[in-house]
Amino acid sequence: MEKSMAINLLLFLCLISSFFLCNGVVIVPRSAAAAHRTVLEQRGGGPYETRYFTQTLDHFNYKPDGYMQFRQKYLVNDSFWEGRGSPIFVYAGSEASIEFIADNAGFVFDVAPSFKALLLFIEHRYYGESLPFGDVGNSSTLGYLSTAQALADYAALITDLKKNLSSEHSPVVAFGGSYGGMLAAWFRLKYPHVVIGSVASSAPILQFDDLVSPYTFIDIVTNDFKSESESCFKTIKNSWKEMDDALRQPGGPQKLGKAFKLCPGAKPKYVPSWISRAFIYGAMTDYPTASDFLTPLPAFPVKQSCTEMILIVRGSRNESMFPAESYDYQKQLAYCKEAYKISPRLHWITTEFGGHHIKRVLKRFGSNIIFFNGLRDPWSGGGVLKSINPSLIAIVAPQGAHHVDLRFATEQDPVWLQNVRRKEIQIISKWLKQYYEDSRI
Amino acid sequence: MEKSMAINLLLFLCLISSFFLCNGVVIVPRSAAAAHRTVLEQRGGGPYETRYFTQTLDHFNYKPDGYMQFRQKYLVNDSFWEGRGSPIFVYAGSEASIEFIADNAGFVFDVAPSFKALLLFIEHRYYGESLPFGDVGNSSTLGYLSTAQALADYAALITDLKKNLSSEHSPVVAFGGSYGGMLAAWFRLKYPHVVIGSVASSAPILQFDDLVSPYTFIDIVTNDFKSESESCFKTIKNSWKEMDDALRQPGGPQKLGKAFKLCPGAKPKYVPSWISRAFIYGAMTDYPTASDFLTPLPAFPVKQSCTEMILIVRGSRNESMFPAESYDYQKQLAYCKEAYKISPRLHWITTEFGGHHIKRVLKRFGSNIIFFNGLRDPWSGGGVLKSINPSLIAIVAPQGAHHVDLRFATEQDPVWLQNVRRKEIQIISKWLKQYYEDSRI
Repeated sequence: MEKSMAINLLLFLCLISSFFLCNGVVIVPRSAAAAHRTVLEQRGGGPYETRYFTQTLDHFNYKPDGYMQFRQKYLVNDSFWEGRGSPIFVYAGSEASIEFIADNAGFVFDVAPSFKALLLFIEHRYYGESLPFGDVGNSSTLGYLSTAQALADYAALITDLKKNLSSEHSPVVAFGGSYGGMLAAWFRLKYPHVVIGSVASSAPILQFDDLVSPYTFIDIVTNDFKSESESCFKTIKNSWKEMDDALRQPGGPQKLGKAFKLCPGAKPKYVPSWISRAFIYGAMTDYPTASDFLTPLPAFPVKQSCTEMILIVRGSRNESMFPAESYDYQKQLAYCKEAYKISPRLHWITTEFGGHHIKRVLKRFGSNIIFFNGLRDPWSGGGVLKSINPSLIAIVAPQGAHHVDLRFATEQDPVWLQNVRRKEIQIISKWLKQYYEDSRI
Repeated sequence: MEKSMAINLLLFLCLISSFFLCNGVVIVPRSAAAAHRTVLEQRGGGPYETRYFTQTLDHFNYKPDGYMQFRQKYLVNDSFWEGRGSPIFVYAGSEASIEFIADNAGFVFDVAPSFKALLLFIEHRYYGESLPFGDVGNSSTLGYLSTAQALADYAALITDLKKNLSSEHSPVVAFGGSYGGMLAAWFRLKYPHVVIGSVASSAPILQFDDLVSPYTFIDIVTNDFKSESESCFKTIKNSWKEMDDALRQPGGPQKLGKAFKLCPGAKPKYVPSWISRAFIYGAMTDYPTASDFLTPLPAFPVKQSCTEMILIVRGSRNESMFPAESYDYQKQLAYCKEAYKISPRLHWITTEFGGHHIKRVLKRFGSNIIFFNGLRDPWSGGGVLKSINPSLIAIVAPQGAHHVDLRFATEQDPVWLQNVRRKEIQIISKWLKQYYEDSRI
């Protein structure tokens, strides 16, 4: 059985209890991003050019505030574009700077030449440099951060860009991973006149309300480890109590800190939660390619998880690898009120975007979305794992992790991964072919 | 050839130049609404019960203001409903009080018994009693008036109502006429998980940007009159100059006022524009049933036509019945800045809802919308007149006027109108049948 480097590293943890942490932040894989850019440059396409769009602050409100504008950053690579009418591939920025997103979106760079596509990466509002109010974050300034606004941003920017390129007839395909994958899926469903299709990778669009069990997420993490090593699973399961006991004893915290080589100033009491996160990230980034990094996936989209992104992922059963904890929405509610002085709109996402009875709803409505999920990814628990109709297609990779399909292809890629990408390319080709045929009629 | 009462009345105008006007407001057809309600009561279904829903002010913004709430009125008739799981027919309120809307929505009352449907009429925010800020209207308070907010209101209210009725599995079908028809169409396209289908009657969803000629609207009004009487058309065409000349002569305004029997205080200089509007309303309400009223269709949705509803209907060619006037967006822009201190977002509607290349966009996306249009209705110029796919169906009635299909059936209805309604009923039945079959699987 193929073992990923991430899991190997964590198994190593089990064996020697030695783990590098610095202030609870996982190592930044600059080497991987740099490698990525080098490859691009070698292939003759400089990675991207930086541009800015003057974006409307509030698309759905006509108050004077709503007419304010902010600079939204976006990246363009037109080195493979064959000009007017050729496709545009738009990568949905999510909860990170757009360069980080682009540097981990190798797939679109890989396929752009054969599709002769223009690559467009749009930074999500409130991330990177696209800050409507600079660094000021309070309940007033943050209020314009919502999924609906983000999608409208993308619609407006793409529409404007196509006009400026005199290429209003270029078909646009959207891509995105994780929250970006959710955006890509919803973008196609809400704006079919802007995008002809979407690749929604590891998009947990069903992780809301009571659509999935709140324990699914942690169950999948547990299974990832348990399937590699029963004894490791047991070791981890028992470790929480051990760490807890250690933290309670006199001199215990210091011992724990030393064992985990904490950086000066880092508080030992956070060790269990850092390790917890490391396991979760390990499961998410359980990639097959030999590599020496852990992707620093951004923190939970904390800003949004108190407004609408109430992803139901907290809660662990007795049988899991983590301390048992029942799912309790009240805790999240209390936290949001304390930290941000707002109450989440618990059911807004499913009211706005749907999710309940998704097969019945979309069976005869909607087309051209690929839902990729890797079953080693804990977020797959909230993903669309079965095709809904002949063109709302689920691609499921039992060995896959978090949006592995959207990463750069390498020579070490296992066959299943090559097949996944090949299938996606086939489907995208079909969308484009159909579009051009429809345009001729 | 069948002549409508409305056109007859206006022909009478041509002959005797005698027209009843009072301060430029067309006679309110209280008799028709009262008649409607009487029929309903006779059939055993009281018209409706009034209720209120606590609605979120801003669905897309998490600022403190956005969390404000207002009372949204809605009307319910459940006298034909067969209980949990039975269909819900929701009528989209538009730019009027919801009672006015309901009183002119005879069709849904006619069909509710055979479908065993619950009837739900939702008042559009900022109309009737559903006023977030009471009577206060300024650029701050009016800013929350937008189509996207209105649709989200409907989605939230319906979702909540179904939960309260313990009938979350009831299929919902939307109906609407004119702007309400636009809402019904966009509601299905944006919220397929809330409504299984929509009847969008006389919905000018293509009357934006350069999708249709700005002269189409007035051309259709002209043809309505010209097709009835060439000499009447000529008389009207020549009348504008005559009225203009009269207004310029000493004593002229008084003569004009007397000729048109103006009410005390009404200014003669407005006579041409009132007559203009009468012709347009006459064309819109060119209904076949013998009746003694002109529907007081509400004024152009003025509040919204300075923000996003930039319907391209102004402009008349030389050949039209009206004084020649070229379409000039700048005039509208200037008016909006003067009156409301805001600039319209000229292309927002097509960015948010589409419209360009609608056949190509929706051919393989979207389902279950009936687009009805009557070709005597000037708004049909911006309507969907050709079916887009087997379930995005255009029903076109050459003799039809503004959402005539949604009016009460009467014994005098011409065969073409009975056929239109029969077809709509067939299609709705099919949607429901399919829904119940899909639910069983």
